[in-house]
Amino acid sequence: MTDFSATKSMFDLPEGLVYLDGNSLGPLPRAASDRMARVMQEEWGKLLISGWNKAGWMAQPMRTGDRIARLIGAEPGHVVIGDTLSIKVYQALAAALDMRPDRRVILSDSGNFPSDLYMAEGLVAALDRGLELRVVAPEAVESALTDEVAVMMLTQVDYRTGRMHDMARLTEKAHETGALALWDLAHSAGAVPVDLSGAQVDFAVGCTYKFLNGGPGAPAFIYVAPRHADTARPALSGWLGHAAPFAFEPAYRPGTGIERMRVGTPPVLALAALEAALDIWDRVDMADLRARAITLAERFIAAIEPACPMLTLASPRDPAQRGSQVSFHFEHGFEAMQACIAHGVVGDFRAPDIMRFGITPLYLDEADIDRAAQVIRQVMQDRLWDDPAYRIRDKVT
Amino acid sequence: MTDFSATKSMFDLPEGLVYLDGNSLGPLPRAASDRMARVMQEEWGKLLISGWNKAGWMAQPMRTGDRIARLIGAEPGHVVIGDTLSIKVYQALAAALDMRPDRRVILSDSGNFPSDLYMAEGLVAALDRGLELRVVAPEAVESALTDEVAVMMLTQVDYRTGRMHDMARLTEKAHETGALALWDLAHSAGAVPVDLSGAQVDFAVGCTYKFLNGGPGAPAFIYVAPRHADTARPALSGWLGHAAPFAFEPAYRPGTGIERMRVGTPPVLALAALEAALDIWDRVDMADLRARAITLAERFIAAIEPACPMLTLASPRDPAQRGSQVSFHFEHGFEAMQACIAHGVVGDFRAPDIMRFGITPLYLDEADIDRAAQVIRQVMQDRLWDDPAYRIRDKVT
Repeated sequence: MTDFSATKSMFDLPEGLVYLDGNSLGPLPRAASDRMARVMQEEWGKLLISGWNKAGWMAQPMRTGDRIARLIGAEPGHVVIGDTLSIKVYQALAAALDMRPDRRVILSDSGNFPSDLYMAEGLVAALDRGLELRVVAPEAVESALTDEVAVMMLTQVDYRTGRMHDMARLTEKAHETGALALWDLAHSAGAVPVDLSGAQVDFAVGCTYKFLNGGPGAPAFIYVAPRHADTARPALSGWLGHAAPFAFEPAYRPGTGIERMRVGTPPVLALAALEAALDIWDRVDMADLRARAITLAERFIAAIEPACPMLTLASPRDPAQRGSQVSFHFEHGFEAMQACIAHGVVGDFRAPDIMRFGITPLYLDEADIDRAAQVIRQVMQDRLWDDPAYRIRDKVT
Repeated sequence: MTDFSATKSMFDLPEGLVYLDGNSLGPLPRAASDRMARVMQEEWGKLLISGWNKAGWMAQPMRTGDRIARLIGAEPGHVVIGDTLSIKVYQALAAALDMRPDRRVILSDSGNFPSDLYMAEGLVAALDRGLELRVVAPEAVESALTDEVAVMMLTQVDYRTGRMHDMARLTEKAHETGALALWDLAHSAGAVPVDLSGAQVDFAVGCTYKFLNGGPGAPAFIYVAPRHADTARPALSGWLGHAAPFAFEPAYRPGTGIERMRVGTPPVLALAALEAALDIWDRVDMADLRARAITLAERFIAAIEPACPMLTLASPRDPAQRGSQVSFHFEHGFEAMQACIAHGVVGDFRAPDIMRFGITPLYLDEADIDRAAQVIRQVMQDRLWDDPAYRIRDKVT
């Protein structure tokens, strides 16, 4: 059994704060600062250029990828870290399109994260071969899977509502029509059990700064199914994806398997923080985490919904169809969230009217959930949101 | 006048080591560890998600870009940080090709860094519109500038020899034939004075972990000339290049100017280390640096060449045509470099036979140069390289 009181003690959270925004940026693992200091002083400072070999920096993206592989049901050796999620979406989508040259549609849904759609839009424009990005409602994806579809590109868990797609079923349907399946796990990795291998997913990507707690701007990851890994063509053919990067050959030769999805020099310092975060994940069983997340989320909903009639549940009521967040609609959601934050309960707001709360058992327990619910009830019942101070909008929320 | 003894004291270099590999990975600035600890503990740890606004993380890539702009003669507000150099090459090349739809040749040279050529190769294959990557000898670039050339893509300073292209002259020639000029400043930024604005360069990219000392895997930068900045089309159209990233609009609208070349979430932790490195650069005048680098390089060559007849200068003899490194050909260069390293003088080796030494006045002085030359002379005169222990090859050198 995973010991969640032990994992909670491994995070450095400000006293008195209930942090329900780990679905946007995970908190600081206590060990991360020391780990970073060691990498900077002992490795960069003392080893200098020899750190690439002696400290294993060059192997970091694969080594770290393997630790994430376990959390998302990927085969060992088939996940690599690097770049940002948007870049990884582009790589995976370009490789998938290349495998379906006779098909012209990228199918996605309106619940996908906008950057995924933007990257696809850019790729469609660049390739200039009559491709179409077709965006349908989340519930219409299955019926939109026609034999025109080259790639079904979806984010498993909706960033606003937490609505979760059935990855296995949709992947199977996509395959039946001859399409490839590309899944974005931004709100899945470290949030819900994922079984990429079992679902026979073709490509997957995700970020590490949300539920995985890798730090602000932590790098992304990419997975290519073993059956495609040695044939997928890298559109972003950088030197570290070359079969022999340090031979400095004039022409590109893709590396073996997932290594060809590497592009440039690995972000060594960022990876140090991520590795400290993954030390905590190594202690976690995803089934335990999921069970506990559902318990906490149900407790949260039950403590808020009856007491706050102005809040409408935006997330699926069935926990099996929900990722690890709870969202409510509220017309004055922005102001209400500011009021919650001012009272020590941090969630966030997504336009036009969504208040989001991340449920992260690694560092949240029943007492946190109860305290958060109490503050939210107070904000709503006492109309604390109706204070002009809470109307000032930051750029990022 | 730049005070180079002051800048030297701002680096944490191992006692007894002469580090001549700052052209590959710059050393640790003393202030970087504290800066990183502060960002991790005070910003990530305490501000959590609000760090994006309160600690200015979202503005970091532009703020940091401006500090680099000064070093490369770019107009303020036209450089932004992010991703890796390979990704930035792709972005700049894609945007440039898009501006010359009627031309089919990307002109580069065999002295370009392989990853730049690989990325171009990948783009040519993906675009599938009859483009050709034409690679000529460095001295043949000018005569290869025909009216077929859409983009001249060059690295200013050759990573092996240090041979430096005449940026102003080649850019002017490219423009005369209607081509655009894309310069990679990997071995120029922080190494030699660059005047992007004066030379009317169209696009430039570079990395920050070499002469700029941003740390292993530090992010890259990109420059787009002001005259193109609001029309250049971003191929990697990520959300942070959107005009309103947090409006979460379904369709991509490019941001203003260079901001459209942002892609994903900024690497906040890596940027903290880079900012500490740039605090040192803020004290440096590039003309002073160049004068001193030439003095040190000439001293180095004079101390080695007459005493080591087996070493042949691979770099241009004329310092005006040389970047801030000195390279020698030697058949047993790999082993000789291992011997130098074993004796406390760190340079590196590039196949097939190049021994490279970076000349970085920020933390090297005459005593370092003299000590390095003495060790190299000893390695050559006593044939220390002819020891089997030095034949074991690491993956990265």
